[in-house]
Amino acid sequence: MTSIGIYGSLGRMGTAIRDILAVQGVRLAGGADAGDDPAELARAADALVDFSTASALPAHLAAARDAGTPIVIGTTGLSAADHALIDDAARDIAVLQTGNTSLGVVLLTRLVREAATRLGADWDIEIVEAHHRHKLDAPSGTALMLGEAAAAGRGVSLGEVRVADRAGLSGARAEGTIGFASLRGGSIVGDHSVMLATEGERIELAHRAEDRAIFARGAVRAALWLADQPAGRYTMDAVLGL
Amino acid sequence: MTSIGIYGSLGRMGTAIRDILAVQGVRLAGGADAGDDPAELARAADALVDFSTASALPAHLAAARDAGTPIVIGTTGLSAADHALIDDAARDIAVLQTGNTSLGVVLLTRLVREAATRLGADWDIEIVEAHHRHKLDAPSGTALMLGEAAAAGRGVSLGEVRVADRAGLSGARAEGTIGFASLRGGSIVGDHSVMLATEGERIELAHRAEDRAIFARGAVRAALWLADQPAGRYTMDAVLGL
Amino acid sequence: MTSIGIYGSLGRMGTAIRDILAVQGVRLAGGADAGDDPAELARAADALVDFSTASALPAHLAAARDAGTPIVIGTTGLSAADHALIDDAARDIAVLQTGNTSLGVVLLTRLVREAATRLGADWDIEIVEAHHRHKLDAPSGTALMLGEAAAAGRGVSLGEVRVADRAGLSGARAEGTIGFASLRGGSIVGDHSVMLATEGERIELAHRAEDRAIFARGAVRAALWLADQPAGRYTMDAVLGL
Amino acid sequence: MTSIGIYGSLGRMGTAIRDILAVQGVRLAGGADAGDDPAELARAADALVDFSTASALPAHLAAARDAGTPIVIGTTGLSAADHALIDDAARDIAVLQTGNTSLGVVLLTRLVREAATRLGADWDIEIVEAHHRHKLDAPSGTALMLGEAAAAGRGVSLGEVRVADRAGLSGARAEGTIGFASLRGGSIVGDHSVMLATEGERIELAHRAEDRAIFARGAVRAALWLADQPAGRYTMDAVLGL
Repeated sequence: MTSIGIYGSLGRMGTAIRDILAVQGVRLAGGADAGDDPAELARAADALVDFSTASALPAHLAAARDAGTPIVIGTTGLSAADHALIDDAARDIAVLQTGNTSLGVVLLTRLVREAATRLGADWDIEIVEAHHRHKLDAPSGTALMLGEAAAAGRGVSLGEVRVADRAGLSGARAEGTIGFASLRGGSIVGDHSVMLATEGERIELAHRAEDRAIFARGAVRAALWLADQPAGRYTMDAVLGL
Repeated sequence: MTSIGIYGSLGRMGTAIRDILAVQGVRLAGGADAGDDPAELARAADALVDFSTASALPAHLAAARDAGTPIVIGTTGLSAADHALIDDAARDIAVLQTGNTSLGVVLLTRLVREAATRLGADWDIEIVEAHHRHKLDAPSGTALMLGEAAAAGRGVSLGEVRVADRAGLSGARAEGTIGFASLRGGSIVGDHSVMLATEGERIELAHRAEDRAIFARGAVRAALWLADQPAGRYTMDAVLGL
Repeated sequence: MTSIGIYGSLGRMGTAIRDILAVQGVRLAGGADAGDDPAELARAADALVDFSTASALPAHLAAARDAGTPIVIGTTGLSAADHALIDDAARDIAVLQTGNTSLGVVLLTRLVREAATRLGADWDIEIVEAHHRHKLDAPSGTALMLGEAAAAGRGVSLGEVRVADRAGLSGARAEGTIGFASLRGGSIVGDHSVMLATEGERIELAHRAEDRAIFARGAVRAALWLADQPAGRYTMDAVLGL
Repeated sequence: MTSIGIYGSLGRMGTAIRDILAVQGVRLAGGADAGDDPAELARAADALVDFSTASALPAHLAAARDAGTPIVIGTTGLSAADHALIDDAARDIAVLQTGNTSLGVVLLTRLVREAATRLGADWDIEIVEAHHRHKLDAPSGTALMLGEAAAAGRGVSLGEVRVADRAGLSGARAEGTIGFASLRGGSIVGDHSVMLATEGERIELAHRAEDRAIFARGAVRAALWLADQPAGRYTMDAVLGL
């Protein structure tokens, strides 16, 4: 039975992961937070998940590498130097770094890229997201990730084609652009929808998160999968066999 | 059998109305365009519809009034002076002036107002609309009309609470605001959706137009209804008994 | 400050109501379950909510009536005899009995009735609901309530016009019928959508529950409202001023 | 410039294809209907499309083969014998046979299969379709095609897992089943939505047809693509590079 260790075990995601482990009957190897020894946890666990802070990443990576323990990194705000450290560690251990651990979002991103690749530029792409009233930024990081997948499918970068919003618009839609729209209200956990529309028909590819626990659930699934992988750097796509 | 006369019979709406009359078996009294005598048509018809130009409105109103013939006015770009002329004519004949002749949109507008009135300010209101790639302005006139209905239900004016878009937002949603978002793509005739979201639940009130003929259909239904009304100024609400 | 007493305080709804009271800062007068004295709670509370069992209803109603305390009844499975008891008690105290305490669902029901009343029989009505994979019955009670509202708006009874499903259909849609469809999957708390469709356009009126706490929240709001009402029998509509 | 010949040129699809050719500036080689010589058209065209009747297929295939002209077959009601004839002809000419020429539906079908393959059986699949009030059968052929794609992605046949509807259901959802629901109303051209729902999240993959001309448009695109292909039997997937 695979055991999982949590860096940042007292944070929001760490707590959620602990709850999910209990529900799913997966063994918790332990948790480590600021002040704890990361090496001990790395030796005790079959796989690690890190949802702590970027500043703690180097110590966590070093501990994982020394112990030869695979690690899932969901910590945000990573710098180019952090990514270089990850690449380096991935020569010795399996490392999966991701900005979104929802399996549904990961799959949707792939489907959006596929749709954008196959359908020509005469299919207009627009992305709408809705979140709760307390969210501070717009559009959501996931909406941008979906936009990047659509742009990549078209062989362009999102920066070249992004239209932030259409308020006060005066003029027809420019071909090849990707539009974004954001709604805010109530307690919506996170809805994302990508529309591809052409003359006479349209496709809508959407994801609805009902519960923030999906991120913890995906992180656990990623860790269980990663425990059996050889050294290398992975993404969530690989967990789904994409 | 009621007969209908069309001012602006060669325009896009005039043509659509003529087609609908044929399908529905309603008698066409005739059409009048620039250069034709409006008085003759007014005397020949049981009810008139005007989808011509604002500059022609005074002559059409005078002709309708002289003949005692009810008139539906769908012409856009009316000035305050035009509205004063309409009020004046409405002392002698039945006049229905409207910016949208779709029965579905008219009903939706009423439902949105009702919802905004009944639900407290802890229900956040957001409006999304989608139209074809050639549409030049955003948001749509109908979206603004829905926003005005929501604001009226709350006892405020839309100008006080409108948030044009949320791109680049930095900060939580302000209570009582009404947000707008616009999508453009393909050949979408016109979708509108009003979301009211609070803690744990949301309501979505939406309209989809599949076909521009709905505007002609609603204009004909309004004219048939207006033919039997006494002098006065009416709106589409009255056609639905609202 | 209004205090609320809960009959059935250890059940699922009773527990949820207790949690909501704590969040909202409303005073809990206490709870009473099987074996407890209902009279004591009735005297201690400004308003009562009952989410216990139908068999306990007579004792709860008698206690409320003796103490002169308004009572919200959300208990299900009531018989005709139970309803007669409620009518009788309502001569002395304020009683609100309801099968659904979500404010959003209550409002949607009203909007559906209004839409069905105003739009003619050439607008076809279809109702779709989606719930989690564990739900045992279909369609949901709320879907049937929405169907009854639509039928009432048309001046018919649902039994006359209901089409349970269209699988294996062979023939065009009969005018005036109301169709139902049910989806089951995942952990969906409860989505309901009523479509009214005619030639060229359609209206969709929908509700999404994200969280079962909305029912507790609505029950508390109803109790706070009821605390100030004179004797009589009420429904949730009255809480929204409908 | 590629020229296209139409078998069944006076039928609904034949007429629609002719209209699209005119709009797109593609050359019409001609049309052949009952009583016309199929060989002449086959020699005159660079590619053929056949939307006639199953009984005429053998003659059309023979003419195409003799002339060495690629042919798109959209005729419905084909027998096993017809499919054998197509396989045989495909040894000498390029033949594309399909039940649905909408590019959007073809792509959606692929995305549904991909999603069903990647996500485990703990994602419940449900398919909803909506069509106009005159449609005689339910569910739609396209809904069944989407269901077959989902089942294929899971490695089962649709017949094993299909749940025709859930009306009157008494019991929880069985794992691995695929449910169907059909709505009928107004003039809806054709909406299809596939939902995959698990604990806490769901994906919705949908297509909306606004206009029946999309089938003619897809047929023309398929014919233009097929004109350059070597002998073989193709599906619409190949047109999208799938």
